[in-house]
Amino acid sequence: MSSIQPGQGKRIFMQEVCPRDGLQNEAVFVETADKIALIDRLSLCGFAKVEVTSFTSPKAIPALRDAEAVMKGIQKVAGVEYSVLVPNMRGAERAIACNIDEANLVMSCSESHNNTNLRMGREASFNQLKQVIREIEGTSVAVNVSLSAAFGCPFEGNVPEKDVMSLVDRFAGLGVRGVTLCDTTGMAYPTQVLNLCRNVKKFFPALEVTLHFHDTRGLALANTVAALSEGIDRFDSSAGGLGGCPYAPGASGNVCSEDMVHMLSLMGFDTQVNLADLTGISRSLASLIGHEVHGSIVRAGRRDDLHAMPESLEQSFKGFIKDGVKA
Amino acid sequence: MSSIQPGQGKRIFMQEVCPRDGLQNEAVFVETADKIALIDRLSLCGFAKVEVTSFTSPKAIPALRDAEAVMKGIQKVAGVEYSVLVPNMRGAERAIACNIDEANLVMSCSESHNNTNLRMGREASFNQLKQVIREIEGTSVAVNVSLSAAFGCPFEGNVPEKDVMSLVDRFAGLGVRGVTLCDTTGMAYPTQVLNLCRNVKKFFPALEVTLHFHDTRGLALANTVAALSEGIDRFDSSAGGLGGCPYAPGASGNVCSEDMVHMLSLMGFDTQVNLADLTGISRSLASLIGHEVHGSIVRAGRRDDLHAMPESLEQSFKGFIKDGVKA
Repeated sequence: MSSIQPGQGKRIFMQEVCPRDGLQNEAVFVETADKIALIDRLSLCGFAKVEVTSFTSPKAIPALRDAEAVMKGIQKVAGVEYSVLVPNMRGAERAIACNIDEANLVMSCSESHNNTNLRMGREASFNQLKQVIREIEGTSVAVNVSLSAAFGCPFEGNVPEKDVMSLVDRFAGLGVRGVTLCDTTGMAYPTQVLNLCRNVKKFFPALEVTLHFHDTRGLALANTVAALSEGIDRFDSSAGGLGGCPYAPGASGNVCSEDMVHMLSLMGFDTQVNLADLTGISRSLASLIGHEVHGSIVRAGRRDDLHAMPESLEQSFKGFIKDGVKA
Repeated sequence: MSSIQPGQGKRIFMQEVCPRDGLQNEAVFVETADKIALIDRLSLCGFAKVEVTSFTSPKAIPALRDAEAVMKGIQKVAGVEYSVLVPNMRGAERAIACNIDEANLVMSCSESHNNTNLRMGREASFNQLKQVIREIEGTSVAVNVSLSAAFGCPFEGNVPEKDVMSLVDRFAGLGVRGVTLCDTTGMAYPTQVLNLCRNVKKFFPALEVTLHFHDTRGLALANTVAALSEGIDRFDSSAGGLGGCPYAPGASGNVCSEDMVHMLSLMGFDTQVNLADLTGISRSLASLIGHEVHGSIVRAGRRDDLHAMPESLEQSFKGFIKDGVKA
């Protein structure tokens, strides 16, 4: 284990989180019709799952105040799951009424992060989510739990792995289909990712385990390689790298979908995501959100996008010709 | 083999290439005194090696036209090697006269890239470098050869691994101390890095092998993890991520030194580089080059730079409180 190997066509299940986790962080309100069009385009790209919206209070997150309209307006594509964020009982009721495929519940592995983000302690959050899980039981809706700050807390620093494992254990005991280990503020590093993934896979082999990386400190793809080496096959990512964290000023956001698909594809994994279509969508995001996205592929192109040799070396590369060299 | 493991204090030898590979790409001429001060500060950070300048024609690379003055002006620090780029015989003579520790020769693994970059074919380059190596033999100067486009060519695409191995073999036969596998335009990906590193280490166990990654497509740190898993312990990097490639518009530059040191340190490796000092230097580069640098640590801080909890949740996190959540 923990060996980096060529994908050899192994399927990787990608969840696109831009419509929820990305747009939630933007200053502008993206019109409902534009959200629906974006989700429909993403649906056709080949993602296994799309996180559509969040059934939170419209006052709390005005950017996603149109959750019902968005969920009802999208064209569902066969084979794609539609997930929504559900914070509490009220959200669960609203979400179930909208014919969702998955409810994504959330709480934090860190007490102070949970308090800051959800304004209650972890035990209160757990008990509330337990109720939500009971409410959803018996419906066709699957339950996933996103565990924030699983690799570190921006206020406390290290989060003991046993705290994360304990929450995974308790939610597994409630029968959830999957858990997502969220590196909410980009604190994960490769050897840490190895350990946590190894233990979660070992002790909860039946659980669907998703990794949710942020690229705050440039480590999202390195962490992905580490997770892959432990057999993780589910990842969240956000078109254009949208998203971020309100507690880490200047931080970049979620790992960029097209950058991740590009790497996975080069490594021989099968994401089933059409990279050209996805990159086109990410390029078009700027017109929706009013600023450029910061992904590498959008900026520099794919590895296979070759360049023409300069027609005139003298004219084109003044500084680099002759015995001037670029190593 | 190819297993990601905690560093457990293993020494990693970092070469800082910003003064040569970084500044060579900048539009402005950094004053000689400022270059010397920069190199002296970098020397004190703990790098194993610093690439100081390039003994190319001043007309070809005006940004480095002060090679002699810089090399003679710096304060050498015990334990730090000072390397310079040497393109040809003339450069070798000039460099040897300046009391350098290492001559870094360069040619490309791709015919078209070599033609574009060096205006001659690979065989002509090899023969020229062979002469340079003969010239240096018998002096105290060590020889390293940087092999450009070792992971792909921006004009041709894939570069056969056998072409790279063949060049490594021929230079090893000439008795060079080390080779650097350069991902000149950011085309390397983790499984490719694994293979090449494994083969070079296997067939040339006595050779010092350095990896030189560019972050063009966001893969530099993922590739570093792959190289580490094959036992590579020498890396080039550039403070602030300075550098780039003239053939890949919009591409970002060399892997950022402070981002790499940050990751290696979290993984338990010992780079001996003082991250706080290095980050301070990278922050100060903007005033030398006239634009911001794009490293993650400069922007977002280190993993251990914790944040204060908001005093008033209501005021500080309007959009994120209540049942608004951030996974």
